[in-house]
Amino acid sequence: MTDNRLASRDSFVERDAADPLASRRDGFHLPGGVIYLDGNSLGALPKRTAARVGAMIEHEWGEGLVRSWNTHDWIGAPARLGAKIAPLIGAAPDEVIVADSTSVNLFKLVCGALGLRPDRRVILSEPGNFPTDLYVLQGVGALLGGRVELRLRSRDELADAIDEQTAAVVLTHVHYKTAERWPMAEITARAHQRGALAVWDLSHTAGALALDLHAVGADLALGCGYKYLNGGPGAPSFVYVAKRWQEALVSPLSGWMGHAAPFDFVDDFEPTASIRRQLCGTPGMLGLAALEAGIDTFAGVDMVALEAKGMALGDAFIALVEARCGFSELMLASPRDAARRGSHVSFRHPDGYAIMQALIARGVIGDFRAPDTLRFGLTPLYLRFTDVWDAVETLRDVLASGEYRDPRFARRAAVT
Amino acid sequence: MTDNRLASRDSFVERDAADPLASRRDGFHLPGGVIYLDGNSLGALPKRTAARVGAMIEHEWGEGLVRSWNTHDWIGAPARLGAKIAPLIGAAPDEVIVADSTSVNLFKLVCGALGLRPDRRVILSEPGNFPTDLYVLQGVGALLGGRVELRLRSRDELADAIDEQTAAVVLTHVHYKTAERWPMAEITARAHQRGALAVWDLSHTAGALALDLHAVGADLALGCGYKYLNGGPGAPSFVYVAKRWQEALVSPLSGWMGHAAPFDFVDDFEPTASIRRQLCGTPGMLGLAALEAGIDTFAGVDMVALEAKGMALGDAFIALVEARCGFSELMLASPRDAARRGSHVSFRHPDGYAIMQALIARGVIGDFRAPDTLRFGLTPLYLRFTDVWDAVETLRDVLASGEYRDPRFARRAAVT
Repeated sequence: MTDNRLASRDSFVERDAADPLASRRDGFHLPGGVIYLDGNSLGALPKRTAARVGAMIEHEWGEGLVRSWNTHDWIGAPARLGAKIAPLIGAAPDEVIVADSTSVNLFKLVCGALGLRPDRRVILSEPGNFPTDLYVLQGVGALLGGRVELRLRSRDELADAIDEQTAAVVLTHVHYKTAERWPMAEITARAHQRGALAVWDLSHTAGALALDLHAVGADLALGCGYKYLNGGPGAPSFVYVAKRWQEALVSPLSGWMGHAAPFDFVDDFEPTASIRRQLCGTPGMLGLAALEAGIDTFAGVDMVALEAKGMALGDAFIALVEARCGFSELMLASPRDAARRGSHVSFRHPDGYAIMQALIARGVIGDFRAPDTLRFGLTPLYLRFTDVWDAVETLRDVLASGEYRDPRFARRAAVT
Repeated sequence: MTDNRLASRDSFVERDAADPLASRRDGFHLPGGVIYLDGNSLGALPKRTAARVGAMIEHEWGEGLVRSWNTHDWIGAPARLGAKIAPLIGAAPDEVIVADSTSVNLFKLVCGALGLRPDRRVILSEPGNFPTDLYVLQGVGALLGGRVELRLRSRDELADAIDEQTAAVVLTHVHYKTAERWPMAEITARAHQRGALAVWDLSHTAGALALDLHAVGADLALGCGYKYLNGGPGAPSFVYVAKRWQEALVSPLSGWMGHAAPFDFVDDFEPTASIRRQLCGTPGMLGLAALEAGIDTFAGVDMVALEAKGMALGDAFIALVEARCGFSELMLASPRDAARRGSHVSFRHPDGYAIMQALIARGVIGDFRAPDTLRFGLTPLYLRFTDVWDAVETLRDVLASGEYRDPRFARRAAVT
């Protein structure tokens, strides 16, 4: 991007005019006075969601009552939503299902992977992985005792650390803080060479990047419904199990919805052979209805084009910050190379917390991640190039004016 | 109840007129032409639910976006709802929290109970317990291998089977099929005498019976949000952990919401000391909003009076069926003594499936449980005595006319 293009808002207006995805923004409710750069924490509200959930409540539940499990195919919703997520991540429709939370699903997949590698005890991950991923792995270790050893290795050491003791490598494809991508194909291939499985957390990937789990040879994966999939606060999570593992992978959470015949009400658990085995309890229908409305915002979207737009937004954000906020102490904390970056951009600053609070007070909503990271999510489905321009201008104002030093933006104590 | 009172609908009209809980029905949307006797499978829709969930979607999510985790205290919802459920089951406000599904919560509590009894390996339950409870116990057994032995003992053998090998007794207080109650205080005391813990599934209890977990000396319990609590299809579940166990009980599902400081984003899991330890992933807010509206239908309800009404409805149902359907092969499958019964009544019939389908076609919605049980839920919060009369009259018509033999009511193959 030339200096000329960074010098005025006009070129950003032009890029919006030329954006083939621009009309997708119309599918979302975006409040006035806000530039929303936190869609990777909680995706924005699709316009269709309220009506969809309202219909489920008033018509399906209120009028249909318990009959709607059949008449409105509530019972089929987890697999139906999975089949809709599948093309977004390069999976087959019968390889994905929606269930529980990402934390619970990670527990299932890791216990399942250990069961597929009974002679191996090492689970390999990285320090600084998203905390709940590490916490769940620690919980598996505490529960299974000597059966499991959790090893954390840094990015430059991890590939070499995959060895014949490794049962599974468990990583988040796009890092929640830095947006750095793991080379998924390379790590998966390395795991397979050593006889290990790879479990990928796609929470910051699904709905933003063009993924092809089949091309990668992925074994097991999971992801979040409430970030780029726009499923609403605490939306249920999705699970991917490659067809070749579906019959062998045992879920430790063997609830009735994973039974071959749940409504026969027999005493003995007999798991279904399908992806439905990853279900546990009764599916939460309101959450599923909202998630379906969120997934439906992707109908007809070319994921390659979507990823390209996200990368262009990120490139523009970085270039603008460096061109216009160069006087500040902001330090880029994400890869400069878009091919190594997810759909958000992070900067570090010693006053990161206060700066983010001051931005939010001005209507530019990003996220802060302790201890010093300002995170800007650049959701390609509903953000404009002019949003990037306007956000960086606001950031420049906040930094130049020093308004972030106002006591009302000071960091509060962490909530326990 | 005298024969005279069973001879005409008038006495039922009088009982409704005298019912101090009668006005509670106004809090629910109940479709015309339907008598809903399946509130113990899916509770009816509270009138306030649609507006509450709509406000969360359009105002809190749509306008507030990610800020609503704080500004609308989404993050506090699981504990807030737990505190509202607590008085319904005789617990302290800080002993109950809402999270995940009943199946997942049972997994947590059973693994936790095993951790509290490291030298014991036996989990004791009954054959014919609700299937997902048994399936989850089998899953714990499969995961932990020789560490666990699942023993199933019938009602008359179970108390004596609690011994020094028993880590935990896991039972459903009110049986999903027969409505038979376990003597909770007696079994819990017996478990404690032998050094074991008792884990109670309250799915068919909470919101229908007057429970006092403290008086019972209960250790751990869980229950369903979508039955008598009216939380909507697949509503989240609740967990009770007696204060004395909260610091010692380890959840195997150690997700970030159970961390002492989840937003510090540190690598090591440090569980909070509070009931919040039973949380795992990010709470599903739409499901929580609907559940809160459901729980709020109990505000100001005297649970002793509520239980008494449910028992009276059940007594009337049994007496009417026996008085007016005596010509049929219906056999009472629930305790005749209301003190030993939950808030539903079941009958067995060789053509049970077809009879229930014929009833549903006539607008009397009950439930069928394989192989031959007709189940009638008698939700005291919104059912009338005249509903009982009208339902039994319809049952009599269906039986007397033989219309249930119509091929359209024949049993379909089980879905796999």
